[in-house]
Amino acid sequence: MVVASPTDQHLDHTRRALAAGKAVMCEKPLDLDLTTALGAADVMSGDNVPLLLGFNRRFDRHFSTLKQQIIAGRIGSLESLLIVSHDPSPPPVAYIKVSGGLFKDMAIHDFDMARFLLDEEPVEVFATTACLVDPAIREAGDFDTARTVLKTASGKICVISNSRRSGYGYDQRIEAYGSKGLLKADNLTETTVSHWGQDGAQADTFQNFFLSRYADAYRAEADHFSDIITGASKPCVGYRDAIRALALAEAAARSATTGQVVHL
Amino acid sequence: MVVASPTDQHLDHTRRALAAGKAVMCEKPLDLDLTTALGAADVMSGDNVPLLLGFNRRFDRHFSTLKQQIIAGRIGSLESLLIVSHDPSPPPVAYIKVSGGLFKDMAIHDFDMARFLLDEEPVEVFATTACLVDPAIREAGDFDTARTVLKTASGKICVISNSRRSGYGYDQRIEAYGSKGLLKADNLTETTVSHWGQDGAQADTFQNFFLSRYADAYRAEADHFSDIITGASKPCVGYRDAIRALALAEAAARSATTGQVVHL
Amino acid sequence: MVVASPTDQHLDHTRRALAAGKAVMCEKPLDLDLTTALGAADVMSGDNVPLLLGFNRRFDRHFSTLKQQIIAGRIGSLESLLIVSHDPSPPPVAYIKVSGGLFKDMAIHDFDMARFLLDEEPVEVFATTACLVDPAIREAGDFDTARTVLKTASGKICVISNSRRSGYGYDQRIEAYGSKGLLKADNLTETTVSHWGQDGAQADTFQNFFLSRYADAYRAEADHFSDIITGASKPCVGYRDAIRALALAEAAARSATTGQVVHL
Amino acid sequence: MVVASPTDQHLDHTRRALAAGKAVMCEKPLDLDLTTALGAADVMSGDNVPLLLGFNRRFDRHFSTLKQQIIAGRIGSLESLLIVSHDPSPPPVAYIKVSGGLFKDMAIHDFDMARFLLDEEPVEVFATTACLVDPAIREAGDFDTARTVLKTASGKICVISNSRRSGYGYDQRIEAYGSKGLLKADNLTETTVSHWGQDGAQADTFQNFFLSRYADAYRAEADHFSDIITGASKPCVGYRDAIRALALAEAAARSATTGQVVHL
Repeated sequence: MVVASPTDQHLDHTRRALAAGKAVMCEKPLDLDLTTALGAADVMSGDNVPLLLGFNRRFDRHFSTLKQQIIAGRIGSLESLLIVSHDPSPPPVAYIKVSGGLFKDMAIHDFDMARFLLDEEPVEVFATTACLVDPAIREAGDFDTARTVLKTASGKICVISNSRRSGYGYDQRIEAYGSKGLLKADNLTETTVSHWGQDGAQADTFQNFFLSRYADAYRAEADHFSDIITGASKPCVGYRDAIRALALAEAAARSATTGQVVHL
Repeated sequence: MVVASPTDQHLDHTRRALAAGKAVMCEKPLDLDLTTALGAADVMSGDNVPLLLGFNRRFDRHFSTLKQQIIAGRIGSLESLLIVSHDPSPPPVAYIKVSGGLFKDMAIHDFDMARFLLDEEPVEVFATTACLVDPAIREAGDFDTARTVLKTASGKICVISNSRRSGYGYDQRIEAYGSKGLLKADNLTETTVSHWGQDGAQADTFQNFFLSRYADAYRAEADHFSDIITGASKPCVGYRDAIRALALAEAAARSATTGQVVHL
Repeated sequence: MVVASPTDQHLDHTRRALAAGKAVMCEKPLDLDLTTALGAADVMSGDNVPLLLGFNRRFDRHFSTLKQQIIAGRIGSLESLLIVSHDPSPPPVAYIKVSGGLFKDMAIHDFDMARFLLDEEPVEVFATTACLVDPAIREAGDFDTARTVLKTASGKICVISNSRRSGYGYDQRIEAYGSKGLLKADNLTETTVSHWGQDGAQADTFQNFFLSRYADAYRAEADHFSDIITGASKPCVGYRDAIRALALAEAAARSATTGQVVHL
Repeated sequence: MVVASPTDQHLDHTRRALAAGKAVMCEKPLDLDLTTALGAADVMSGDNVPLLLGFNRRFDRHFSTLKQQIIAGRIGSLESLLIVSHDPSPPPVAYIKVSGGLFKDMAIHDFDMARFLLDEEPVEVFATTACLVDPAIREAGDFDTARTVLKTASGKICVISNSRRSGYGYDQRIEAYGSKGLLKADNLTETTVSHWGQDGAQADTFQNFFLSRYADAYRAEADHFSDIITGASKPCVGYRDAIRALALAEAAARSATTGQVVHL
């Protein structure tokens, strides 16, 4: 069963589907409230619970290749990350009001990606935010621009750059810095066609938004879910990951408010 | 009906399928002999014959975008082309012996692409060849390297670069030069992941060979064929294109032998 | 007079040269202590003091072009910056001990660049540091890795990424994000030669370190200084810039210690 | 002595300067007529004649690096070349009339580059030309577009692409194909600044024309000439190279007229 209901019903629908013996793929975030989400541990945690969390970017070929090359030691030991995650344009303010805010709605993908790549839990979170795109977003109690800095116990640092409106399309890039080099996953363009003119060489536009940029990732995710249904696989990303990403989102929000590092 | 039999049976199978009232998608080349292929004009030429020739590269998103941008005037008037078409490694010599030779087997795609993009028939053909990769290919009566220069009546020039073995993967690039700029369609890489190390920045490998490089093009071609079957479309590439590409291949072979421009 | 003495003598040498009526180009930083540097305001501040501070990167053609394009409105209004400034390998620990620390010795260039490009003073500073490269650097009381987040009163955000050892050469990049696009200044390679092989396409190495990467900038800086000497120009970067960069460096160090945003 | 007089006086000025015991750097071409140039062999040929021919591109860091990497075996054995040499805009027709024509005036650089990189003399020449840019060039007895195919005795093939007007700036690229890979020397841009906008990512313009593109090469050439003057070096490119390039230019012109391969 795929839970793609409004976010405030994710937890309930997932709980009921699991109770009915179904394998569940639940869209992110699992819930807008960490405490509430923690309350579902009894039925959702555990290696044998067939719950797949919809962090689709883990299934993206480019990001998963980057992870494989980190594991293979191509940059020595991983030291830091830069995750750029900028949307082409903001959602309607009506959506923003019920979204849970930029950290839980948008950056949650990046928190999960940071954990996925760091292979170590962040223990310190700092965030700063601004409202530079649209004053209506501020009036709705949210912001449109954020920078978050995560740090793990061993000192690995991850910077996450978020914007609700990039001015140049959907920007989804990762840089992974290690002791022996750097791995970058760059944006995908619509085609390989470039134009050389009087003003320089111009590449084609980036794939416009998540539906096209992550089309292959969604397919791979669905394949994995079908393996979960048949019992061929256990979920590679589940309840624990949902909780951890949510905890990072709440910590980021708190840091942005207090101007202090939040320790987890 | 899809005709993907050995090349020497393409014409016969296509003729019989058309006679049976079937729509036909026939793999390139239509035949290894221009005169024989011309003999099929009575049943295969004509706008209403449901014959689709398997010049799959016309359906490639990158090349068709390049063509659309030429038509849209993005480089002013088109003046010349460069088509690079290098295979990663040569086929078995046994295959080469029955292939009809590099021009009819391999470059035929490029002759069609040249016609597709130039939108004007070449009237002069020059070609030069060499056997640099494997002496067994020469012993089989063929060559592994060729450069062909086509020229249209209005003076547009197309250079085609062919090699049976590139030494660096499958190289499928096009450059279109116009009065106001240049359009390039470049190779596709497996992923957008690059590695920055002590020796410089390294992109991922190119998509390895035609099955992966042109997977989307084959799908688009099949879609077009299904529109032909249902009568929703007429073939966008058919008998006349097969004949013209074959004529260019024979002219190239003659020029390579005589060292003279062949006029069509 | 060019003051390129050890840092702890910069201020005294500059003061004496100015007193002697000389135009002075002083290497960065002006001093290792903000309070001490502030004490020189009586003789060093003022539009007519011929004091050029050695923030050579302002004279880099790539970075100054980026600034000109920001001013020209090519990305609408500037919203945020990313400055990557990674050295190929750390200096000797003996140097680090007297360097004043990563923020005053190395990041000071980036603090100045941030001010140069933002065209607005940062009022909030957050920094986090780690020692990932060499434990001897930690024993010397310093760190080798830092991420700093600056924020201006209007909400513009600048992230600075510093490392004493990149693992892939000298990395000097800037990304400027605006309401209508992104401007990037990328690294320079030794040559435009790239190699395409079985493992992908590989560009040439980056220009190795500051002497080659900024050779042209040093020349342009010297030209500007000679204009100052002749009275043809006033210094485009001087005492006030030295003070502001030093204040940011001290604030970053304090933030890294306290885990709190430092307000300026 | 530097001979940069009009082309029809190169030979005479060079002869007289050599007779006067001077080292000479003579601009290309040595003369517009091969037979005349051959007549100077008595005083200009020989290893000890201090005559440097102005094939400045041999001194370009990018092209000489490419050559070094070929020699070092980075692409196995060299098999073919592509030289793209397109000017941003044509010279005045008055200049074209006395230029000796595209092959002797413009392509002569590329003939020399082909010989420099192939390290083997071409023995077959084919060329085709067109007048696509400006009818006044045709009326002046010249053409503005050419493609030339050179072939060596061992079967190495070089394609040269020339245009008097590219529509997108000064295009000076080389691709060297070998048994184990490809080396490319690409164009230089004014800066590394790129702009990402709604229409894609755009690099800066190419360095505009030969004075900026080859500024460093001219400096290196002058350094080499000063070594010749002092006797520290013998000319790395001299009379024999002038003759060979001129022979290729004349062969190309003949081939373009006859439509036949010219054998040397």
